[in-house]
Amino acid sequence: MRGAVLAVGTELLLGDVVNSNAAWLGKQLAAAGVEVRASEALPDDLDVLVAAVHRHLSQVDVLVLSGGLGPTVDDLTREAVAAALDAPLVRDPRIEQQLRDRFASWGRPMPDAVLQQADVPAGAEVLENTAGTAPGLWLAQDGKVVVALPGPPHELRAAATTVWPRLAAMTGRVVTTRQVLVHGLGESAVAERVEAVVQLPPGVSLSYLASGGLVRVRFTTTGDPAVLEPLVAATDEVLAEHVWGHDDQTVEGVVQDALLDRGQTVAVAESLTGGALSTVLSGRPGSSATFRGGLVVYATDLKETLAGVPGSLLEASGAVAGDTAAALAAGVRERLGATWGLAVTGVAGPDEQEGKPVGTVFLAVAGPSSEVLEVRLPGDRDRVRALTVQSALHLLRRHLLAR
Amino acid sequence: MRGAVLAVGTELLLGDVVNSNAAWLGKQLAAAGVEVRASEALPDDLDVLVAAVHRHLSQVDVLVLSGGLGPTVDDLTREAVAAALDAPLVRDPRIEQQLRDRFASWGRPMPDAVLQQADVPAGAEVLENTAGTAPGLWLAQDGKVVVALPGPPHELRAAATTVWPRLAAMTGRVVTTRQVLVHGLGESAVAERVEAVVQLPPGVSLSYLASGGLVRVRFTTTGDPAVLEPLVAATDEVLAEHVWGHDDQTVEGVVQDALLDRGQTVAVAESLTGGALSTVLSGRPGSSATFRGGLVVYATDLKETLAGVPGSLLEASGAVAGDTAAALAAGVRERLGATWGLAVTGVAGPDEQEGKPVGTVFLAVAGPSSEVLEVRLPGDRDRVRALTVQSALHLLRRHLLAR
Repeated sequence: MRGAVLAVGTELLLGDVVNSNAAWLGKQLAAAGVEVRASEALPDDLDVLVAAVHRHLSQVDVLVLSGGLGPTVDDLTREAVAAALDAPLVRDPRIEQQLRDRFASWGRPMPDAVLQQADVPAGAEVLENTAGTAPGLWLAQDGKVVVALPGPPHELRAAATTVWPRLAAMTGRVVTTRQVLVHGLGESAVAERVEAVVQLPPGVSLSYLASGGLVRVRFTTTGDPAVLEPLVAATDEVLAEHVWGHDDQTVEGVVQDALLDRGQTVAVAESLTGGALSTVLSGRPGSSATFRGGLVVYATDLKETLAGVPGSLLEASGAVAGDTAAALAAGVRERLGATWGLAVTGVAGPDEQEGKPVGTVFLAVAGPSSEVLEVRLPGDRDRVRALTVQSALHLLRRHLLAR
Repeated sequence: MRGAVLAVGTELLLGDVVNSNAAWLGKQLAAAGVEVRASEALPDDLDVLVAAVHRHLSQVDVLVLSGGLGPTVDDLTREAVAAALDAPLVRDPRIEQQLRDRFASWGRPMPDAVLQQADVPAGAEVLENTAGTAPGLWLAQDGKVVVALPGPPHELRAAATTVWPRLAAMTGRVVTTRQVLVHGLGESAVAERVEAVVQLPPGVSLSYLASGGLVRVRFTTTGDPAVLEPLVAATDEVLAEHVWGHDDQTVEGVVQDALLDRGQTVAVAESLTGGALSTVLSGRPGSSATFRGGLVVYATDLKETLAGVPGSLLEASGAVAGDTAAALAAGVRERLGATWGLAVTGVAGPDEQEGKPVGTVFLAVAGPSSEVLEVRLPGDRDRVRALTVQSALHLLRRHLLAR
């Protein structure tokens, strides 16, 4: 079964809103065994919408639309689906009553325009939206399925809950994906090594996703999932210590789980990242068991007063230096009472500092084992900060998992 | 001039990556006077890509592609553009040398596959990519323009710098947008007040964008930009103290500029946000002149040991309380030697804390003037954290600009 995703809204074309629904819908469709062939953003223009529904329905079996189901005049998805499928709009008395009840429960008068949300193309099933007023629609015709979902992401998810199991039952086709997560090797080097040892069986595809200094090696099959296991094992072996996780793991998740397993904690002293490393380590639910806290020692004098870096060391080595990073890690570990101290100092830019170029970063871990690392990171201020956070998490991960 | 945005990458269809480039490209095109008619994500499939380039070129004047310019076998954009425009790929010796130099400077051997990035369709101009190895392409043919840009967002931006002024010169049509940025009023209340005083001249459009607790009032024209000035002035006047900025300003930018103007500094003590407030205050270039540093007092005992909140107060009021927030702000102000101390403590979730529900947040500012604020923020953990950061920045802004 082939599918297409159509996100409706002129604001998507103008770039006022990032089209995050498309990614979420693509993922759900793929997991339900639907091969997503097209994903498009469309303006609030009835002719364009009708033409797009026609065109995609001639090429795919399942069409999922998001957005354009609201109560305003530029909400045209219902009308477009009705026109394209020759299924006239009919007012649904049950939805009308629900809308009236909902507004009554809010104690607010209901504007007339709201009632257009009770109009459904003849033959459509209504998908209940527990998170808002616009219900979704499921319309089957000539062996094809058109699904229309509300645009706000939490309403989209709420209205779609029954869609995915139904589609999976129709495809009878389970897609299995395995990912090997790699750090410290470029995409082409990863590909070269993997392709030297891996032979793809029929029906298995291999792809690489590179972002933020990481590479994901991905194997996908719609056949027997067991064929993926030896491929993952061979990839793990050839990439060796560069493999840090699998599938949907995040490095902060790996770190938090490893700390939890060991009953250990971490505290952070950070300079150029300005709090971003602490933010990630405190982001997941339950992080209070593993994250003690952090010192954002942005001004140089705070490295001494807050984190206990000796003034003489700061004077001799400067704020951006390996032994300063080591002293920060040791200092924050002791002062915040954590198993591990993790520290970063460096030059985020735009200007060089202490004669060191933008991207110069020193990272240090102190604890049951210790290390200082110097790296040169590419990109502008935001990217140097983001890559520093990732590098620090990987440094801590290596030390945690080496034990 | 009409335009289309094509984002290349099977990972976009599968939902592994959110297509944020499309929004950014849409915004740039719109500002350059190009009317964006289509935005599509496409798989790494040569036939599909060639067909899409053909189809869109028959309908628009400018086609911008992103992604698929990397060094692996599934990077097919160069080939697709070459095939669709009948412009055979030619190896560019200057790009080849740049690639060799870049790898040499990294001290890493260059995989052969990297060289495909030096192949360009005959007649294409190369757009230098200062942030990565894959250059962009500009190809003009029969009065139409095809632009291909690398997929990683920072490389896309770096390679595209010359594209927008060139397109703007071609359209000769400058779109002027003025925005009034509002805090503390809902969208419909804003609309009601604005529409009571503003009369739109012909050719000017008015829209409202609400997100993250803020409302943007936007005026757009393709005519004389001067007509927007009285509209902005009238909006400023009717919304009075709810207006905190204009156009592309950010609240952290307003805060940083106000601190700079006054020669003042800020320091942060934060609990539920885990470093995110400090991250924003240290994000912009030059922030070392205004941001001293921060204490991430995630564990309750650190509120006493690091920020000097009296243990008796913590015992009596708890970690999530107004007087605790006030003590945190006063403590971090004194200990970090800043003009202003800014503090947040609250319940991000997923579980309630000290009997207080998720979303309960106390904010405090201490300095030349002081205030404690209690708010109830909606949403899940991530959203509560994000809204807390915004609320704290607006609290500080109010105190800075009131003086």
